[in-house]
Amino acid sequence: MYEIIDASLRAFVDVEPDSDFPIQNLPYGIFSTPEGGVRAGAALGSWVVDLHVLERAGLLPAPAGPALFGQASLNAFAAAGRPAWNAVRARLAALLSGSDARLRDDAELRARALVPMDACTLHLPFEVASYTDFYSSEDHATNVGKLFRDPANALTPNWKHLPIGYNGRASSVVLSGHDVHRPMGQLPVAGGAPEWGPCRQLDFELETAFFVGPGTALGSRLDPDAAAGRIFGMVLMNDWSARDVQRWEYVPLGPFQAKAFATSISPWVVTLDALQPFRVDAPEQDPVPLPYLREGDRHAYDIELSVELGTPNGASTTIARSNFRHLYWTMAQQLAHHTSSGCNLRTGDLMGSGTISGPSPEARGCLLELTENGKRPLALSDGATRDFLQDGDEVVIRGHARRGALRVGFGSVRGRVLPAIP
Amino acid sequence: MYEIIDASLRAFVDVEPDSDFPIQNLPYGIFSTPEGGVRAGAALGSWVVDLHVLERAGLLPAPAGPALFGQASLNAFAAAGRPAWNAVRARLAALLSGSDARLRDDAELRARALVPMDACTLHLPFEVASYTDFYSSEDHATNVGKLFRDPANALTPNWKHLPIGYNGRASSVVLSGHDVHRPMGQLPVAGGAPEWGPCRQLDFELETAFFVGPGTALGSRLDPDAAAGRIFGMVLMNDWSARDVQRWEYVPLGPFQAKAFATSISPWVVTLDALQPFRVDAPEQDPVPLPYLREGDRHAYDIELSVELGTPNGASTTIARSNFRHLYWTMAQQLAHHTSSGCNLRTGDLMGSGTISGPSPEARGCLLELTENGKRPLALSDGATRDFLQDGDEVVIRGHARRGALRVGFGSVRGRVLPAIP
Repeated sequence: MYEIIDASLRAFVDVEPDSDFPIQNLPYGIFSTPEGGVRAGAALGSWVVDLHVLERAGLLPAPAGPALFGQASLNAFAAAGRPAWNAVRARLAALLSGSDARLRDDAELRARALVPMDACTLHLPFEVASYTDFYSSEDHATNVGKLFRDPANALTPNWKHLPIGYNGRASSVVLSGHDVHRPMGQLPVAGGAPEWGPCRQLDFELETAFFVGPGTALGSRLDPDAAAGRIFGMVLMNDWSARDVQRWEYVPLGPFQAKAFATSISPWVVTLDALQPFRVDAPEQDPVPLPYLREGDRHAYDIELSVELGTPNGASTTIARSNFRHLYWTMAQQLAHHTSSGCNLRTGDLMGSGTISGPSPEARGCLLELTENGKRPLALSDGATRDFLQDGDEVVIRGHARRGALRVGFGSVRGRVLPAIP
Repeated sequence: MYEIIDASLRAFVDVEPDSDFPIQNLPYGIFSTPEGGVRAGAALGSWVVDLHVLERAGLLPAPAGPALFGQASLNAFAAAGRPAWNAVRARLAALLSGSDARLRDDAELRARALVPMDACTLHLPFEVASYTDFYSSEDHATNVGKLFRDPANALTPNWKHLPIGYNGRASSVVLSGHDVHRPMGQLPVAGGAPEWGPCRQLDFELETAFFVGPGTALGSRLDPDAAAGRIFGMVLMNDWSARDVQRWEYVPLGPFQAKAFATSISPWVVTLDALQPFRVDAPEQDPVPLPYLREGDRHAYDIELSVELGTPNGASTTIARSNFRHLYWTMAQQLAHHTSSGCNLRTGDLMGSGTISGPSPEARGCLLELTENGKRPLALSDGATRDFLQDGDEVVIRGHARRGALRVGFGSVRGRVLPAIP
């Protein structure tokens, strides 16, 4: 099913050994240059491979269809489905390694098709159809439950039976590098009326997310194995959260404005093909879930995740290290559950993992957990402390997988906190 | 600001006196005919006025821009904003009354521009960008709070301070007439593991909803009076709900699959212009809300709403009568709150009212309330009873406003319950 590029293959251009984007990765994104329009590319080392140039030169295979890559989003390519994804990926590996010499040996084409990444402006890779966020880390849900509910029964009774999720706000999904104004909102006041003001408990959430390729019809359901076949690829995500606003507004219908002001994603969409070498067992599930959530091929990926907090004075501190493999519910189960009522999926649906925490104290994926709701401020490398984010702080989430000499990375998602607009 | 068509104006075609669609209404929709494409129209009595024909004939004013009405959604027209809306509406009133004789006196054009509604297929009026549902009826929130929370403190502490809302699922918004399969889902079992099966507590929710015209930029906020200017128009909505699934899944992040399988809307979008003659005071708010939710021009509309339940044997019973004016939070306040964090709006955003209940027992807008969660089944006209919906039942929601001889209506939103797909 997956198109795996042999670990020994080398690109005909130089790629730094510690690059997130070797030829075994080839993540997709959307970019523009001053002289060209907005189009699709694949990252290779410090280059962007211009897929529209390759497409117009007739070098990409027919299953991808005409002009899939001259558009301002990956939606059309994602909708084309796995046969097209596999054919394009296999051809790119051949062209970029030189085993198919048509690109390597054509200097004029090569000059047009390989664009230095630092000359490119990156754009949102997808037109986001809808955005759903899950809550699939057992450690995260347990830590939050201990803070706000019953420490002895931190997980809600439904948690181990279904991948809890909620609909998020799609309009405010932004690209890495977009700076985020601290939101205004209603702030709870103990026992009294709320105040209106800038959020005082601004937080990040360390997440990954995936984009849906081909959609489904209303009324149809996917089992987890079929659902996995609809996943186009993954990004890193920072689900910015206003904790004080959230605490006040979320009963009984869930988060709303507390998470509606911005959700940041990384620009390069890493395919599941590129992640296959990093398969590991997913956590065992007890109790065994209902049959519609059982997987024939249950697995996770070993993706190391980190969060760096930069302060206005220029210091930066790695404040969290976690791993995608900690998630209790897999992407396939999340997607199967999302169709369980007959709810239809659409190409470009963005599905967030929820905060990815792990069992160790440093593997807590948000400040709410890291500081125990502000009670234990974090010490930063410059001697400053943080309970929640301050104006000027920059959050950088990074992720990569590695096995031996093979490294497949996501790059980063970053965003700086700007002052509230009163 | 609004373009009000004088109550004495008459169309040059016959319109039944009890029609929902007199010349004072002129709601917009999307339709097709066997011989023509999908395009925009306005309802007038039993006719659909083909706006694309009028546009191509050069009869619609320039502010609307070129070819706004030859598209498969109203999004482009809605995005054009109030000056364009007013200009088109004023011109339509002139053309359809004959005060501008260019349509009335052109038999060939008239034959093309006036299409019998029963020869038309209606389509979703908008490409729904995102769908948000509010919870703005005090009676509904109180009734639900009494059933599931503390009867003495039925409203949550936040309820009178902000219009509670949550993000719904946009992909499964369907047009009136779409029949709805009973969803499968996880059903709670007291004290034990959930079961998988067809929903046993399928319900409707009597709602209205509005579509957003021009969007906003991320980071900007609207005050309620400015927000009102972005509202393109209103529809009736049935927010189908699986109560058992909802009860199990919704803590802590809100409804998900329980409301994701279908949300039905009526086809004709009634403008606020058409509703101006039916302005009434909105309920007084105590406590006075925070300044960002205060309205210079607080008002509601007197729109009578009803729910009819049809059973498979052909009997039908009006089981609820309510009124839009009961809503505690206005559309303008809902929309202002939606931008309070800086969340951006997009053209085609659909904003539901939440179930509209009133103070009287018959004004309860869903079966959950009408039957007190199934404890007091409803008696229907054919002697049958209902706690929740059965397969084959049809729910029809109607709405109209009237003052003296003037009637402005929404038509209806209807949908039949089909058996679950196991």
